[in-house]
Amino acid sequence: MKKILIIGCGLLGSSLLRKISKKKIAKQIFVYEKSKSNISKIKKLKLPGKIVRSLKDGVINSDLIIFCVPMSEYKKLILKINRFLSNNTLITDIGSSKIESSKIIRKFLKKRIHWISSHPITGSEVSGPEHGKENMFENKWSIIIKDKKTNLTYLKFLNTFWKKLGSKTVVMDSEKHDKIFSITSHLPHLIAYNLVKSAQDFEKKQKYDLIKYSAGGLRDFSRIAASNEIMWRDIFFNNKKNVSRAIDIFIKNLNSFKKDINSKNNKSILKKLIQTKKVRSRIIKLKQDVNKPDFGRD
Amino acid sequence: MKKILIIGCGLLGSSLLRKISKKKIAKQIFVYEKSKSNISKIKKLKLPGKIVRSLKDGVINSDLIIFCVPMSEYKKLILKINRFLSNNTLITDIGSSKIESSKIIRKFLKKRIHWISSHPITGSEVSGPEHGKENMFENKWSIIIKDKKTNLTYLKFLNTFWKKLGSKTVVMDSEKHDKIFSITSHLPHLIAYNLVKSAQDFEKKQKYDLIKYSAGGLRDFSRIAASNEIMWRDIFFNNKKNVSRAIDIFIKNLNSFKKDINSKNNKSILKKLIQTKKVRSRIIKLKQDVNKPDFGRD
Repeated sequence: MKKILIIGCGLLGSSLLRKISKKKIAKQIFVYEKSKSNISKIKKLKLPGKIVRSLKDGVINSDLIIFCVPMSEYKKLILKINRFLSNNTLITDIGSSKIESSKIIRKFLKKRIHWISSHPITGSEVSGPEHGKENMFENKWSIIIKDKKTNLTYLKFLNTFWKKLGSKTVVMDSEKHDKIFSITSHLPHLIAYNLVKSAQDFEKKQKYDLIKYSAGGLRDFSRIAASNEIMWRDIFFNNKKNVSRAIDIFIKNLNSFKKDINSKNNKSILKKLIQTKKVRSRIIKLKQDVNKPDFGRD
Repeated sequence: MKKILIIGCGLLGSSLLRKISKKKIAKQIFVYEKSKSNISKIKKLKLPGKIVRSLKDGVINSDLIIFCVPMSEYKKLILKINRFLSNNTLITDIGSSKIESSKIIRKFLKKRIHWISSHPITGSEVSGPEHGKENMFENKWSIIIKDKKTNLTYLKFLNTFWKKLGSKTVVMDSEKHDKIFSITSHLPHLIAYNLVKSAQDFEKKQKYDLIKYSAGGLRDFSRIAASNEIMWRDIFFNNKKNVSRAIDIFIKNLNSFKKDINSKNNKSILKKLIQTKKVRSRIIKLKQDVNKPDFGRD
């Protein structure tokens, strides 16, 4: 590849930058970043690539453009870059939900421009280029979205790109993607936020200093609930139908647990508590986590 | 101290055993364990202390007896040891909820025997003596329960004991304890179990292989949901009033999130997502977690 443009150089954008440079995937890497604070961090960190002030310089003649900005920025950016785009360029993004952003892209992207969406299943609760790292995608899944009109040559090209970064890849459509991640990622994050919110409400009401004793469980949720709020608002809003359904399943099950607890239904609660262990074994087997007990981090 | 008896030598019992021996807190440490598999593990691990086959040998002349068994076993054990107890012995336990177990103790323990409850805020999702470790209590809170009739000399003695193990200690009554931990520990565990259960239900219905993609959030909950089911059933049942109330707060808040999402209420959802970050800062400040991003465990 001759030229790659990364738009947005936060946690994942800067990780892409580091790895693309390390693996010499493109002759030139351009970075467009609108936050002055991020730009000065990038300079201080001496990250590779060339920071461009104008989108035009970045876009023209790019083989690949990667959107690494919150999904609520897509429309504005698309409208800005449309006139510099040619159909020799492939655009991808790393957004965590797909149906709604596809609509934006279909509606506002100049006709005959190729955009194939990606979603690398990686990240952390922290944001910013200072936390990015080269091996962010190593052995992680990258989902590639194939819809009816997806160009197969570009799909192959994008697949190879993610594999070069160390990812395992899988192709699916937006609908399946958004359903799966509403349960495995969006709901867990919402639940974490909600638990911390509930603890805050309780603390305010009871005037107990709860947080001191958070090591018994709350602590781990608070880490997840410290994730970037703009990114998560966008995800919840963009995948609202599936997230809303996931909330319903969750509340239904929680009410069933409550019933077991209130009636001390031994058989029913034990069945539930034992059944969930099976998922853990599968997660370990699939190498999505290590089989090492967690005692908190020192 | 001359003699300590540990009843139940699983994760926490064996950690106590290791640390008590290391710090030479007692001249003799006796261990009573009913599981044959645990006994053979203890022997294989060459843990310190003397395994007793009869509770009588363990109980008589003990300065301190520590119950490290599920709370549902307390009654049976109390009835077994009553006739060997003298009022020179202090009994404590490490159960995670207090009001209900106090009732059992008051009802079944021989009169004029001292029992002061403890709750060290530590542990892991794994069980068994093979996972125990010496520094399990280091810098962790140990709650000591003081009710109206608590003997202050023994309270001081128990406080010193936990400090020798490396714990920070705090004294509170059963009511306050059970309220605090319903939110910081019992609800988080229930939520984790419930999330994994919901993912299983979803998977069954949709026939998607979800677990493969669990690194985006579900993974961390599945670890918590792999905790010991007997212990957690006992906790949920024993603290049912508070847990039930905590569930109600949680569902109320979750419905509010759902409303924000369905109506795309930007202001309201951002307020919630930002507010929860404050808890994280307090947790870090109180040294209940380290300020280190989490990228999953390798």
